[in-house]
Amino acid sequence: MLVIKVGGSAGISLEAVCADVAELVHEGQQLVLVHGGSNETNVIAEKLGHPPRFVTSVSGYQSRRTDRETLSIFEMVYCGKINKSIVERLQGLGVNAVGLSGLDGRLLEGPRKRSLRIVEGGRRMVLHDDYTGKVKKVNVSLLRLLLDNGYLPVVTPPAISHEHEAINVDGDRAAARIASALSADLLIILSNVPGLLRSFPDETTLIPHIDQTRTEEFSLHAEGRMRIKMLAASEALQSGVKRVILSDGRVEHPVRAALAGKGTLIE
Amino acid sequence: MLVIKVGGSAGISLEAVCADVAELVHEGQQLVLVHGGSNETNVIAEKLGHPPRFVTSVSGYQSRRTDRETLSIFEMVYCGKINKSIVERLQGLGVNAVGLSGLDGRLLEGPRKRSLRIVEGGRRMVLHDDYTGKVKKVNVSLLRLLLDNGYLPVVTPPAISHEHEAINVDGDRAAARIASALSADLLIILSNVPGLLRSFPDETTLIPHIDQTRTEEFSLHAEGRMRIKMLAASEALQSGVKRVILSDGRVEHPVRAALAGKGTLIE
Repeated sequence: MLVIKVGGSAGISLEAVCADVAELVHEGQQLVLVHGGSNETNVIAEKLGHPPRFVTSVSGYQSRRTDRETLSIFEMVYCGKINKSIVERLQGLGVNAVGLSGLDGRLLEGPRKRSLRIVEGGRRMVLHDDYTGKVKKVNVSLLRLLLDNGYLPVVTPPAISHEHEAINVDGDRAAARIASALSADLLIILSNVPGLLRSFPDETTLIPHIDQTRTEEFSLHAEGRMRIKMLAASEALQSGVKRVILSDGRVEHPVRAALAGKGTLIE
Repeated sequence: MLVIKVGGSAGISLEAVCADVAELVHEGQQLVLVHGGSNETNVIAEKLGHPPRFVTSVSGYQSRRTDRETLSIFEMVYCGKINKSIVERLQGLGVNAVGLSGLDGRLLEGPRKRSLRIVEGGRRMVLHDDYTGKVKKVNVSLLRLLLDNGYLPVVTPPAISHEHEAINVDGDRAAARIASALSADLLIILSNVPGLLRSFPDETTLIPHIDQTRTEEFSLHAEGRMRIKMLAASEALQSGVKRVILSDGRVEHPVRAALAGKGTLIE
């Protein structure tokens, strides 16, 4: 079992990912595709007059400020525009894809953060109307039901809270949860960098291999979004996934390249 | 088996429909919910600077002009905003809803109209870049798979063409196809009118009962969108659905009211 996460940053080629996915499926590989949509959400939110905002938590992670209106825009882009364009493309390549958000069948469930402690302009603040949270539970029986009947699940945030609210969750960590729930052999996380870089943004400083026991040490090299990817990788490995590859989603055959050893392999 | 179609016109209460649906599901009723999203699509399309346009076919039916950009907005609203808000609401009412478009698992498939003959300003024109079509085939095994495993399918256009393109299809006729594929006893079509009116828009002229053999005759009373609803009803009845009720989606208990005899019953 293979889980592929493809990010939603500018420059990532969903077409190329879909082409590779279709080839793998035709070769008999069982897999689940998880995707993001951050860049396109920014574009649409701007057009709709509700521009994106990002906040930094006191522990240093950056996340999208997700008020209820942002959540609605988020759903339009992730579950509507991007999910359906991936499903349409895969169908055109002969793959019987089914798109699902974390709300559908409570596929991705977890607690909503009742308060979000952030730092803004050097000041600490607490947000109470933010719809973000963390995936703790995957409805693996729904995924298996679809996989066993010949469908390819194409999964996207949001998730659903224990109180049944849609919540924005990190896509990489959601993919890690899915990979561990399915006891996947491999999780591939594709983004707009070639992998973990010793000195970001110098792409010649790519770290090709990391031993699982040393992920925390290597996380010190991670900047911005890569810190969360390292955390996702570490969570996946700790919960039974054998290997995680962080690789480049901007190249011609992104999945093939990752499988051929490009990127950062953590095992 | 019951199929409920709820339209996307202004004034229709999705909250009230979901409340009734949840009660029925808890009473053990198997059902499929189909929804539209036309009004909200108009609002979002306007905001995104790609205002809605409607065309009238030479046979007199009005439909949304669906170029590729409109299709993307359509997917954002129908599959993202509205489908996920219904799924979230039903989950909050204890119903394990799964939202699906016609693309997912090729749930709703049919031919795309390669050319659309329209009348504009008295002149006949042919459109070649319109993504509209008609549902001919329902992936009933996917619906049954979900129903048999305790999930409630929440279905929305677009459908998928034989050439794997997303196509805008009429929601009422799609619901009729679903109802006949599932051999449903009853199809309820909820909209922003109380049923078929003898003289539209006078709501006191509601026709409470129509014999199936006389639908064509009664269709003469239908104006605008109601003509397509009558066509959908007729198609459903001809393909094995026992009863169709056209009823009001703006009332407090829209499904309960329809089941209690409000609206136009066609059988």
